[in-house]
Amino acid sequence: MIKAAVLGATGYAGIELVRLLSGHPEAEIKILGSKSFEGRKISEVYQNFNHILDIKCTELDLDEVAKCDVAFTALPHGASKSVIPQILERGVKVIDLSGDYRYDDASVYEKWYGEKHSSPELLKESVYGLPELHREKIKGARLIGNPGCYTTCSILGAFPLLKSGIGEHKNIIVDAKSGVTGAGRGLALQTHFCECTENTKAYKVAVHRHTSEIEQELSKAAGEDIMISFTPHLIPQKRGILATIYINLKKPCTQEEVLNVYREFYGGEFFVRVKETGALPETKHVAGSNFVDIGVVVDERLQRAVVVSALDNIVKGAAGQAVQNMNLMFGLDEATGLKNAGFYL
Amino acid sequence: MIKAAVLGATGYAGIELVRLLSGHPEAEIKILGSKSFEGRKISEVYQNFNHILDIKCTELDLDEVAKCDVAFTALPHGASKSVIPQILERGVKVIDLSGDYRYDDASVYEKWYGEKHSSPELLKESVYGLPELHREKIKGARLIGNPGCYTTCSILGAFPLLKSGIGEHKNIIVDAKSGVTGAGRGLALQTHFCECTENTKAYKVAVHRHTSEIEQELSKAAGEDIMISFTPHLIPQKRGILATIYINLKKPCTQEEVLNVYREFYGGEFFVRVKETGALPETKHVAGSNFVDIGVVVDERLQRAVVVSALDNIVKGAAGQAVQNMNLMFGLDEATGLKNAGFYL
Amino acid sequence: MIKAAVLGATGYAGIELVRLLSGHPEAEIKILGSKSFEGRKISEVYQNFNHILDIKCTELDLDEVAKCDVAFTALPHGASKSVIPQILERGVKVIDLSGDYRYDDASVYEKWYGEKHSSPELLKESVYGLPELHREKIKGARLIGNPGCYTTCSILGAFPLLKSGIGEHKNIIVDAKSGVTGAGRGLALQTHFCECTENTKAYKVAVHRHTSEIEQELSKAAGEDIMISFTPHLIPQKRGILATIYINLKKPCTQEEVLNVYREFYGGEFFVRVKETGALPETKHVAGSNFVDIGVVVDERLQRAVVVSALDNIVKGAAGQAVQNMNLMFGLDEATGLKNAGFYL
Amino acid sequence: MIKAAVLGATGYAGIELVRLLSGHPEAEIKILGSKSFEGRKISEVYQNFNHILDIKCTELDLDEVAKCDVAFTALPHGASKSVIPQILERGVKVIDLSGDYRYDDASVYEKWYGEKHSSPELLKESVYGLPELHREKIKGARLIGNPGCYTTCSILGAFPLLKSGIGEHKNIIVDAKSGVTGAGRGLALQTHFCECTENTKAYKVAVHRHTSEIEQELSKAAGEDIMISFTPHLIPQKRGILATIYINLKKPCTQEEVLNVYREFYGGEFFVRVKETGALPETKHVAGSNFVDIGVVVDERLQRAVVVSALDNIVKGAAGQAVQNMNLMFGLDEATGLKNAGFYL
Repeated sequence: MIKAAVLGATGYAGIELVRLLSGHPEAEIKILGSKSFEGRKISEVYQNFNHILDIKCTELDLDEVAKCDVAFTALPHGASKSVIPQILERGVKVIDLSGDYRYDDASVYEKWYGEKHSSPELLKESVYGLPELHREKIKGARLIGNPGCYTTCSILGAFPLLKSGIGEHKNIIVDAKSGVTGAGRGLALQTHFCECTENTKAYKVAVHRHTSEIEQELSKAAGEDIMISFTPHLIPQKRGILATIYINLKKPCTQEEVLNVYREFYGGEFFVRVKETGALPETKHVAGSNFVDIGVVVDERLQRAVVVSALDNIVKGAAGQAVQNMNLMFGLDEATGLKNAGFYL
Repeated sequence: MIKAAVLGATGYAGIELVRLLSGHPEAEIKILGSKSFEGRKISEVYQNFNHILDIKCTELDLDEVAKCDVAFTALPHGASKSVIPQILERGVKVIDLSGDYRYDDASVYEKWYGEKHSSPELLKESVYGLPELHREKIKGARLIGNPGCYTTCSILGAFPLLKSGIGEHKNIIVDAKSGVTGAGRGLALQTHFCECTENTKAYKVAVHRHTSEIEQELSKAAGEDIMISFTPHLIPQKRGILATIYINLKKPCTQEEVLNVYREFYGGEFFVRVKETGALPETKHVAGSNFVDIGVVVDERLQRAVVVSALDNIVKGAAGQAVQNMNLMFGLDEATGLKNAGFYL
Repeated sequence: MIKAAVLGATGYAGIELVRLLSGHPEAEIKILGSKSFEGRKISEVYQNFNHILDIKCTELDLDEVAKCDVAFTALPHGASKSVIPQILERGVKVIDLSGDYRYDDASVYEKWYGEKHSSPELLKESVYGLPELHREKIKGARLIGNPGCYTTCSILGAFPLLKSGIGEHKNIIVDAKSGVTGAGRGLALQTHFCECTENTKAYKVAVHRHTSEIEQELSKAAGEDIMISFTPHLIPQKRGILATIYINLKKPCTQEEVLNVYREFYGGEFFVRVKETGALPETKHVAGSNFVDIGVVVDERLQRAVVVSALDNIVKGAAGQAVQNMNLMFGLDEATGLKNAGFYL
Repeated sequence: MIKAAVLGATGYAGIELVRLLSGHPEAEIKILGSKSFEGRKISEVYQNFNHILDIKCTELDLDEVAKCDVAFTALPHGASKSVIPQILERGVKVIDLSGDYRYDDASVYEKWYGEKHSSPELLKESVYGLPELHREKIKGARLIGNPGCYTTCSILGAFPLLKSGIGEHKNIIVDAKSGVTGAGRGLALQTHFCECTENTKAYKVAVHRHTSEIEQELSKAAGEDIMISFTPHLIPQKRGILATIYINLKKPCTQEEVLNVYREFYGGEFFVRVKETGALPETKHVAGSNFVDIGVVVDERLQRAVVVSALDNIVKGAAGQAVQNMNLMFGLDEATGLKNAGFYL
């Protein structure tokens, strides 16, 4: 059994990790780290865990973490950065759900996060934890920068078209819609039920940090540095991201030609489901599961592909992907503990 | 492996059965019966099952069903009645999710359902599938009348107080609130999103069929025939029933005394969680899981207990309880395939 | 034109007052009091008011309030009590939306609110602002204790049956469901969108303050002190309260006999709509309007009436009723500015 | 008083017309046409109208319609086309909410709607009822093609940038999100509450009819025929459309320069509210009102403007705009009966 610590266990990404790990046949939760709820049972904080998991939340104790095989850090960015080097020193692998270790280049981090990176040397070692793109590196890594929710959805949606050389590098638009769990459990007026229900809005237009993460990975596909428009929206549901991605085509292509690019690229992937012509992803199809669904419509009038991708922001966009990474790092079947169809209802 | 047929697989109770059975370590789905979607893959009808389950839906074929060990009938009442005798004849156990085989007495069925019962002799044999009350009978049964959603919630909430002799038999009020999955997938104006969201209403006041089912079981607790007020309400959420139950106390009791009645009655039950004083059930705590949560407040001013019970109407109120029954009928640990904390988010 | 001050204008009851008063043909908003948003335009705080109302929020200035004809105090209880005597001294009428001036007897207030009442002499003068019961007194009042949301719904639902002598005084149960605006705009985990959506729960069972207010008024109907069970629930919608009220009947009555009691009692009332047999209130029918809808089902099996009443908690349950009171106090047609059908959608 | 007929009164656009007209000081509803509910009071079909409006729904009777000054046709497209010529013959002005009379060119209609236009001669006369663009023509019209919901939002959002010559004509993307009232009251699986809540999806990508309507008007702004990408999405709320519009800039511009284009273009418009830098529209700000809110972010990195526009799809996107058109056609102040801030809550 893999002994796991979840630090930041009582936030939404954290508790989703707890949900997934508590049903994982090869992992065992040893530590639930939580500042806010130190000393309280997780089954009091999230009462759905009563009769399932009764571990108490604790403040960070590095000696205890040292007894684990892996630590998931579901902490705010910055907080992750300050504790992770000490965990690694103790020989414990780390999967970090913050933005701190997702970048190849510290200067990009510093530009978009507005602060110095305190351990840029670790950035060289850390692996961007998107298994569909970096599987082999993940297997050997001791530090994973687990991708953001918007970014996983956007990158997986756009990558094949750029990699194949069919998609133009300019005028790429990613218009993304996210459920409210993406905003976390902290209290804020914008997540008050009465402010949030029956409301849709765009936010952080042109300045959202995930832009830089998407650009980093898509530039690898394109073979040159590219820039994109990324617009996040908040929609009145709990789970789910839907990204609508607009990419011009270098030459006229049919729907089938473009779909084939996706079918080939994701042929062997369990967690990526490419839709047949006529079907498109819906967030309901992926809620609660680790799948990413991708559909394509080629607008021949405009010589443009409209790619729609969907995932559950706290599963494939956070906790589920973290478990997928853990499976890879510990030599398990990648889908262990993640083979389910989600809720639908 | 238990070979299972799910008849009526594409309704909401049916698809929840499919969700639970597809993750069950000792069961295997062999048949998905569906009139409406005959010939189509379940993963097209419910696209969340893509990459998980690709069986095609079929029309009822009794010869095929005969190869299974158990058939779940998630059909409208009446439809169940007409097919079940033929399945039983073929030596296949049946767990029926309709109201057809829940009654001890055909005349009660006929009064509340307004039609003749075509196989009253089977009513004598069929077992009311509420494991917390009828576990031993369930183990040996070949036909289970799986309880209704409102009824499971109401009966488990009220039973201990009546059984213990503390609760009065008159003036029992069950005020129940249900999510919309309870109304099924059929199209109706009242389940149109725009009619349903931001709306709460009572319906079928004093005449809902589940009244008779609750009375049947609570009369066993009381030791005499009792009648109750049961009022169902539709609330704007998918999953969950919350029943608020008012029972006068025969003599002054403290909160702890009444809670102890529940603690003792449900002491060994995995799927019933009795809340401590100060905590009360919420539908969110049980969404997606097979748990029933029960909390009690004693109103000493009025010598009355207010019992609050909550469950997920399509899990413990339908599909989950059916799987629990299957586990018992096939000698498995009752919680096999059902040991999870639900979604919360 | 009636010059009006709204103190506490940026809470949910306050802003609903602003909405109603800004469309009122005989009233003019002069002051918007808000501590939190002092100095900011109301159209920045609630951007829906842009191009409609551009007044700035101000901190309380009694000299300015003195220039008004009426002040609405939509402040937390306690805060109301401390400022209202000073407003009255300046010759300004007050309609208080808190619980501070709703009681005939200071000791009841003190018992349920857990604090001393600082101006018990004003309680003698203040009028309970439920026009359907106290219209004449309201016309002459200078201080109105505007009823609570749950209480308006519950009292109007139960009053006729008790007043008529048909309803029993014992075993009255009020099971009420409220939308989330009732919890106000303040930040709390329980009103976080992700905690609130897809969730229903009971709270403050047997101890909610509105119990005492309901009992005060229903005791007048009954002609003796009565006690009731009152259970509030939080449901995942913004607006609306639905109260399901159980009252035993002293003798067997038909549905029509009981309905006639309601038809007669509310015969002349514009804002109370008694449903015909077969129809029942839904919160959607009253959302955004000042109506209370009441339906009745007589359960002849149990000799019990189930009364269902519904209103919009921030209109008839707060701001709308306050405007109705203002209309009466200033000699206007009671329905001025309130004659609309609400939103439905 | 303007005597008005509402044909198709019981659909969502129809009933919103009824809501607005029943509060309009200069209009009087004379006829409520409804096939489905013929003979029934509108207050039974939409019970919120009880005590407000008790007219019975009738089947179409042209002689009765002839007594009106204006007829609103809120019928499915096609149905409108077949009845409108006969109404016009009787000297009654018509405001048509379907797509039948929105086009300058019958061939565009026929291409996108897939059917012959039966009265192409009327297309020459009919005026596209977007007052902010065609006010003077509307004043003199006897037949208005009332714009679609998506189209009003998209056109008003993009028009100034194209008209000013700053926006490029290629690579215009309109990514629009709509509430469910836009899908109408008809029953369909996709509008079932349980399928719709917690779900977001794109639909009719690259083929939605409103594309042609948007292109028709934006081509006028551009001075040449342009084509755009238009992607509609369904989001889990009742009311509201948010359109996120991407337009490349011909030369580098600052945020203020682009905002000034909007401020100038909409300077005198009551129903268009241009947001200041830092603020962006939200559907909640326009729910229930006739306003369109528009905000702009200039992404200097990409030399691209991201314009966000929002409106209530059944008010400014349908019934409210129809009333605005009626006001203009009958010489009233354009905002008569429409000067309110909407609900927010």
